[in-house]
Amino acid sequence: MRQILVIHGPNLNLLGTREPQVYGSTTLAEINGMLEALGQELGLAVESFQSNHEGAIIDAIHAARGRSAGILINPGAYTHYSIAIRDAIAAVDLPVVEVHLSNTHKREEFRHRSVIAPVVVGTITGFGVESYRLGLRALAELTRNHEEG
Amino acid sequence: MRQILVIHGPNLNLLGTREPQVYGSTTLAEINGMLEALGQELGLAVESFQSNHEGAIIDAIHAARGRSAGILINPGAYTHYSIAIRDAIAAVDLPVVEVHLSNTHKREEFRHRSVIAPVVVGTITGFGVESYRLGLRALAELTRNHEEG
Amino acid sequence: MRQILVIHGPNLNLLGTREPQVYGSTTLAEINGMLEALGQELGLAVESFQSNHEGAIIDAIHAARGRSAGILINPGAYTHYSIAIRDAIAAVDLPVVEVHLSNTHKREEFRHRSVIAPVVVGTITGFGVESYRLGLRALAELTRNHEEG
Amino acid sequence: MRQILVIHGPNLNLLGTREPQVYGSTTLAEINGMLEALGQELGLAVESFQSNHEGAIIDAIHAARGRSAGILINPGAYTHYSIAIRDAIAAVDLPVVEVHLSNTHKREEFRHRSVIAPVVVGTITGFGVESYRLGLRALAELTRNHEEG
Amino acid sequence: MRQILVIHGPNLNLLGTREPQVYGSTTLAEINGMLEALGQELGLAVESFQSNHEGAIIDAIHAARGRSAGILINPGAYTHYSIAIRDAIAAVDLPVVEVHLSNTHKREEFRHRSVIAPVVVGTITGFGVESYRLGLRALAELTRNHEEG
Amino acid sequence: MRQILVIHGPNLNLLGTREPQVYGSTTLAEINGMLEALGQELGLAVESFQSNHEGAIIDAIHAARGRSAGILINPGAYTHYSIAIRDAIAAVDLPVVEVHLSNTHKREEFRHRSVIAPVVVGTITGFGVESYRLGLRALAELTRNHEEG
Amino acid sequence: MRQILVIHGPNLNLLGTREPQVYGSTTLAEINGMLEALGQELGLAVESFQSNHEGAIIDAIHAARGRSAGILINPGAYTHYSIAIRDAIAAVDLPVVEVHLSNTHKREEFRHRSVIAPVVVGTITGFGVESYRLGLRALAELTRNHEEG
Amino acid sequence: MRQILVIHGPNLNLLGTREPQVYGSTTLAEINGMLEALGQELGLAVESFQSNHEGAIIDAIHAARGRSAGILINPGAYTHYSIAIRDAIAAVDLPVVEVHLSNTHKREEFRHRSVIAPVVVGTITGFGVESYRLGLRALAELTRNHEEG
Amino acid sequence: MRQILVIHGPNLNLLGTREPQVYGSTTLAEINGMLEALGQELGLAVESFQSNHEGAIIDAIHAARGRSAGILINPGAYTHYSIAIRDAIAAVDLPVVEVHLSNTHKREEFRHRSVIAPVVVGTITGFGVESYRLGLRALAELTRNHEEG
Amino acid sequence: MRQILVIHGPNLNLLGTREPQVYGSTTLAEINGMLEALGQELGLAVESFQSNHEGAIIDAIHAARGRSAGILINPGAYTHYSIAIRDAIAAVDLPVVEVHLSNTHKREEFRHRSVIAPVVVGTITGFGVESYRLGLRALAELTRNHEEG
Amino acid sequence: MRQILVIHGPNLNLLGTREPQVYGSTTLAEINGMLEALGQELGLAVESFQSNHEGAIIDAIHAARGRSAGILINPGAYTHYSIAIRDAIAAVDLPVVEVHLSNTHKREEFRHRSVIAPVVVGTITGFGVESYRLGLRALAELTRNHEEG
Amino acid sequence: MRQILVIHGPNLNLLGTREPQVYGSTTLAEINGMLEALGQELGLAVESFQSNHEGAIIDAIHAARGRSAGILINPGAYTHYSIAIRDAIAAVDLPVVEVHLSNTHKREEFRHRSVIAPVVVGTITGFGVESYRLGLRALAELTRNHEEG
Repeated sequence: MRQILVIHGPNLNLLGTREPQVYGSTTLAEINGMLEALGQELGLAVESFQSNHEGAIIDAIHAARGRSAGILINPGAYTHYSIAIRDAIAAVDLPVVEVHLSNTHKREEFRHRSVIAPVVVGTITGFGVESYRLGLRALAELTRNHEEG
Repeated sequence: MRQILVIHGPNLNLLGTREPQVYGSTTLAEINGMLEALGQELGLAVESFQSNHEGAIIDAIHAARGRSAGILINPGAYTHYSIAIRDAIAAVDLPVVEVHLSNTHKREEFRHRSVIAPVVVGTITGFGVESYRLGLRALAELTRNHEEG
Repeated sequence: MRQILVIHGPNLNLLGTREPQVYGSTTLAEINGMLEALGQELGLAVESFQSNHEGAIIDAIHAARGRSAGILINPGAYTHYSIAIRDAIAAVDLPVVEVHLSNTHKREEFRHRSVIAPVVVGTITGFGVESYRLGLRALAELTRNHEEG
Repeated sequence: MRQILVIHGPNLNLLGTREPQVYGSTTLAEINGMLEALGQELGLAVESFQSNHEGAIIDAIHAARGRSAGILINPGAYTHYSIAIRDAIAAVDLPVVEVHLSNTHKREEFRHRSVIAPVVVGTITGFGVESYRLGLRALAELTRNHEEG
Repeated sequence: MRQILVIHGPNLNLLGTREPQVYGSTTLAEINGMLEALGQELGLAVESFQSNHEGAIIDAIHAARGRSAGILINPGAYTHYSIAIRDAIAAVDLPVVEVHLSNTHKREEFRHRSVIAPVVVGTITGFGVESYRLGLRALAELTRNHEEG
Repeated sequence: MRQILVIHGPNLNLLGTREPQVYGSTTLAEINGMLEALGQELGLAVESFQSNHEGAIIDAIHAARGRSAGILINPGAYTHYSIAIRDAIAAVDLPVVEVHLSNTHKREEFRHRSVIAPVVVGTITGFGVESYRLGLRALAELTRNHEEG
Repeated sequence: MRQILVIHGPNLNLLGTREPQVYGSTTLAEINGMLEALGQELGLAVESFQSNHEGAIIDAIHAARGRSAGILINPGAYTHYSIAIRDAIAAVDLPVVEVHLSNTHKREEFRHRSVIAPVVVGTITGFGVESYRLGLRALAELTRNHEEG
Repeated sequence: MRQILVIHGPNLNLLGTREPQVYGSTTLAEINGMLEALGQELGLAVESFQSNHEGAIIDAIHAARGRSAGILINPGAYTHYSIAIRDAIAAVDLPVVEVHLSNTHKREEFRHRSVIAPVVVGTITGFGVESYRLGLRALAELTRNHEEG
Repeated sequence: MRQILVIHGPNLNLLGTREPQVYGSTTLAEINGMLEALGQELGLAVESFQSNHEGAIIDAIHAARGRSAGILINPGAYTHYSIAIRDAIAAVDLPVVEVHLSNTHKREEFRHRSVIAPVVVGTITGFGVESYRLGLRALAELTRNHEEG
Repeated sequence: MRQILVIHGPNLNLLGTREPQVYGSTTLAEINGMLEALGQELGLAVESFQSNHEGAIIDAIHAARGRSAGILINPGAYTHYSIAIRDAIAAVDLPVVEVHLSNTHKREEFRHRSVIAPVVVGTITGFGVESYRLGLRALAELTRNHEEG
Repeated sequence: MRQILVIHGPNLNLLGTREPQVYGSTTLAEINGMLEALGQELGLAVESFQSNHEGAIIDAIHAARGRSAGILINPGAYTHYSIAIRDAIAAVDLPVVEVHLSNTHKREEFRHRSVIAPVVVGTITGFGVESYRLGLRALAELTRNHEEG
Repeated sequence: MRQILVIHGPNLNLLGTREPQVYGSTTLAEINGMLEALGQELGLAVESFQSNHEGAIIDAIHAARGRSAGILINPGAYTHYSIAIRDAIAAVDLPVVEVHLSNTHKREEFRHRSVIAPVVVGTITGFGVESYRLGLRALAELTRNHEEG
């Protein structure tokens, strides 16, 4: 059974309580639960990780090498400036999918730019919790190809 | 059965033959077939439309009012400058999902900007034909909510 | 009796139903009716044309040569990028007045720029339907001068 | 009878003698006369004020509160940088119309930007003296609504 | 007893009546009263001045030389473009503190830039009337040092 | 005999009558005649197409696949913003030459940028009708190589 | 007794020894001591925290929820790029005051921009250690209102 | 005897006492004295005017029409943003020379731009008091030509 | 027989050996030979000059006055910054044609800008050695007109 | 024996395995070994530290005060945005040398900017592992001077 | 007798014949003659040098060290980009005055920037040949001070 | 014995006398002597060349082909704009190392950009004369590889 690492970036531990009009009212634990359930359905073992520390996220990406089949990441605010996370993603040879809860293009100008997007396979933005679920489906597809390829 | 309008923008009629290293080798007819099949599975009637004419795309969006439950659009090159299509989407009160075959953030600078993104629910970018399929799933979810809400 | 061509750009066919908080609740037919009435008062035969197609608008501008005494145009979203419409206006030797329903300077940054404005006689912006009526009055004045000059 | 304050910004006292190829040959006194005449026709008492002093223009705008039904302003060069006049207009709760004699979009780049435009109801640009007359008509309409509303 | 000059820039005479959702409902006279009271407590004689005229504000700054121990200034809209006021502050050898009622960084882009800030000792922004009171405390401290130094 | 498609963009149907000081007094029919004559000399069958519609130009480019040996295009105003036409050119595997009547670098700033230029073989600008003739010669050379290669 | 969390950002642990011509010679311990003393006077329990780690600062802000009545933060270099800290502040529903020792507007261009400022109540900049003391006073006022409101 | 108007802009009344390391230690009265003396030598009657008020400077420029043969102006800080003074200079048909005491190109970036320079005959910058004297010589030459022409 | 001066800019002496994938494998001598041959055919005496020295190119342009009927120039890298060569071209009253071997719009951003283009009659870019040959034809046409005019 | 601290920034722990076409195939341990060997030769005790955590790098720089004679740093991705690391370097009074394995000027635009470079003694870029060795030589020279000075 | 070196930049050898509407009809020899005459009057030995070669101008500036008392330079087109000439001026410890015949601020945008201006004493722009004469006067003053100081 | 060409750009002939606080007090002859000595140690024959002429530097680079094993270049001011020198370096197939005496990132903004850096192997900046010595060591390494490869 292929293993998928789900990484939640800074402030996502507050989900459900933080600015619910922007980010919705589902908690992070609930999201992880949904993803595990959907993973089961898709034949994927889902493992989650959250950190507010840029360095810890980089460490987690490195650790996925030789262990995970793919990474689903919501880089949170680091989306917009963490070239270090970008380089970590480019350095590990794994399919990575970037997701966002809110439609970042409806928000402040600086949220329109993702320094992560050019090094991932694709991005899914604006569907709330559904963004994660669609991202997991994308990884199911991407890692199946890898397996069979 | 909810009806979903799929709109393919300029040059997408050439899919499968045009720059396959960028856009893949599946034809537009094949994509439409896949979407109809997936639609059936999700309880959605999928109808497709392709045009190279900005005005024709606007006309199609207008015509969806009171007829479709949602729109799945790949605006092609118009993504980057058609404020007229943007306004058409904002004018019709329907959930719209924007999809792209290639990861536009890996390509020329001018392809990083979408004038459409701020008026759609969300965007799915970079998964090839799978972008469309994920987009249809997103619309299934979005229009179910509408229905039940 | 001098003939005036009124051109309505993309999405204006939806007037009265589209985002009424931005564009008001009067329909396009009603606007055309008002303009015909005011035209009569001012000694002008008003003829209206609406299209979502940039090319069709250019064709209409060309056709006004030798037929209309002046053009009243609300270029809609094309205001901000259609250099082709701009060139069409510069090419026909007629007084042209540009009007906008909403105050574009109160809206998104990209709506502040008009590529059309430098080739028209003048612009009237922000008065709702009244923008059109003031524009027709301006053309009455401009074409009277032409006639007498 | 509703009172309308007409404010003429810097250098407009020289009208008729200053760069006539740009601003025409009508003097300021003649414009004021025309506006009074048109005002009479529209049921408006027109009062005029000209100053080259930014502060004096702000004082005049303040003084209009509780006295005038609306303001017709040609801010002249202050159009392009006087945030203080902009704030004065935003501070008084009156309909304000901005007018310009010349088509500022045909002139130097820096004249394309109006810091005033986002706080007025609408703008009328490029019709020479007729800009003022159309602006007065717009105010007649706007203040009638206020009265009746 | 050290004398402190408080300068209120353009439109601040309208305080309490102008856009209360942005600037609060306290009047300028009330603010001056509060500052005089706090001044007494801190051993400072507070004198106030308001003008909408950039030149008058410059004159007032000049006049403070040899008369005031420090200046508390809310430059209002002039904050964003009056290099003349900036030069006046740099020219008089006095500690100057810049205050703002609203948090200018939450407002329009052009309000984020202060041409005054680089020549004052420090700035206090966003605390409503309390900004003035904190600024007076800062000047009490700054002028005490001057006295003792 | 190799077939060459000549595409004339928006407003070029007015050639000879539109702004002759910028574009010269030769009509489009005369240009097409000259190109047919020169084509004959060079062993090329020249076919012409003009449209003001961006979409129609894209359709024409698509239709050239498998039919024409090369394309000579004057994209007119679309030069500066039609990424859709750019993508159409990149999509068809044919040598394309871009020509302009006037020297666009002597005109408005926005005419200095061509979004088409990076996807054509080369550009010829500023020689009036001669630009077309030189462009046809360039295509004669380019398609000869194709044939022989 | 209301609790106030004081957060010192990166490199502030070196205060008193680091570039004293820019940041003064008072140590961080001395500043904390002064703030505790002033807090006592104002009825506030002051608790301090310093870290060079962006993630640790975010964790500390999160931990303040339900524990502190307000936050006084000197984000140091993170002021200029940490959108993650900005989001943490926006996420916790507490009054936050931003302070800076030096007048950042007198220094390098990149220090003029604060990504934090738009989400705090207000900012106090340039008064050395006094910036912190004024900030604490501001919080005393802000949290009193909260208490009484 | 030709009359020359010398205009000194804001803060120049402080000359000799204000930032002498930038502007030198000569007072404005001394400069005016020197210019009168040099004027006598050159056959020019020199009259001086200083104001911190933008509007007063505009009034003075207007008043020079039909009275002065030329204007020597040091616009001080208004150099960088007063489009109103620029328009006043363009409006009066007189030779105008712009002078600056300090070399503005050695100072802050914003002092490198003069909105006045494009409407004067020429500029003289960086020679301290000598800038004024050279400027008067230039006007002597320019107005001699006018006289004789 | 009209004389045409061909000027080759910096590094073009290395043609045929330098980066052949960009510039082709024909040597400069071969190009000059081809141009002489074509010149003969067109009734033009072709004279060539190559230099890596900006000043020497300017001297050559000056020397063409009264000697050559036109200039064909490939300014090489100087295309992008030599305002001195631009001014030399503007100073001599001769038809000048600018050519480039490679399509500069397909290369680095800084190669998209030509400071030379606004002062020449026209430009021909991207056809390899054929660019020169087409340029010579253009000059044949341009100088014939001059002769006959 | 002088001690030198070598700091390796984020993702450099992957050296030898990560994108070898960009960063080479030598591992970090091998680099540290080479530097220790060269250090011995130059009379320097080399100590190495790697972290993906910005805060940990700042802590390490602080800890070098009073312990190391100089710092050799490859800030990796933090080069381009970590003002916090920049401030840490400026805060400790030690000679610091910045090195990069790859030539950052040949890569993405955002890698051309170093926020670190203005506060180090010098930078060495593009020589692969040799960059580190040259950097250590530079520090040998710089710290010898310190010692003898 | 103090020696002054006058340097004329590229294309100035054509003076009198080149674009007389911009640069006037006086030849360079006539200007040099005028300057020698005025020099005699002022006690200065004037020596002139013209070159189209940037390197030759640098050599001339170097050669002035220990030989000339000051330099009068019209850098022509090099004004706008020759950092090498700028550095040469900064390197020789001599008073340098920059002059321009035309008012560069009335011309193309790129002529508004002088890379030379920040390293000279002052600039004189727009007075035609008189610019040179005023510049020589300025140098007479500057070198007298040097002599006496 | 491999030959290395050392190229010194404009104004470097003045080394030791020019702005010693920026560039140090060692003369160019002394630097060349040091490099020859170090070259001998490394088995390299060092040959030096200095010119203020951009064209002469290009000629020298060309001449190195087939004669030198590598080039050590300090392009001086040409670093920032000479695309012609950049192209010369790209054209000759030799390892090139760029060095700078001062840390250009501590100086004016325009010195931060090198148009040369993207075409050399690597750059060494800020170590004074030591920059050259380190650069020669880098070339020793680079050319050894070439030799053995």
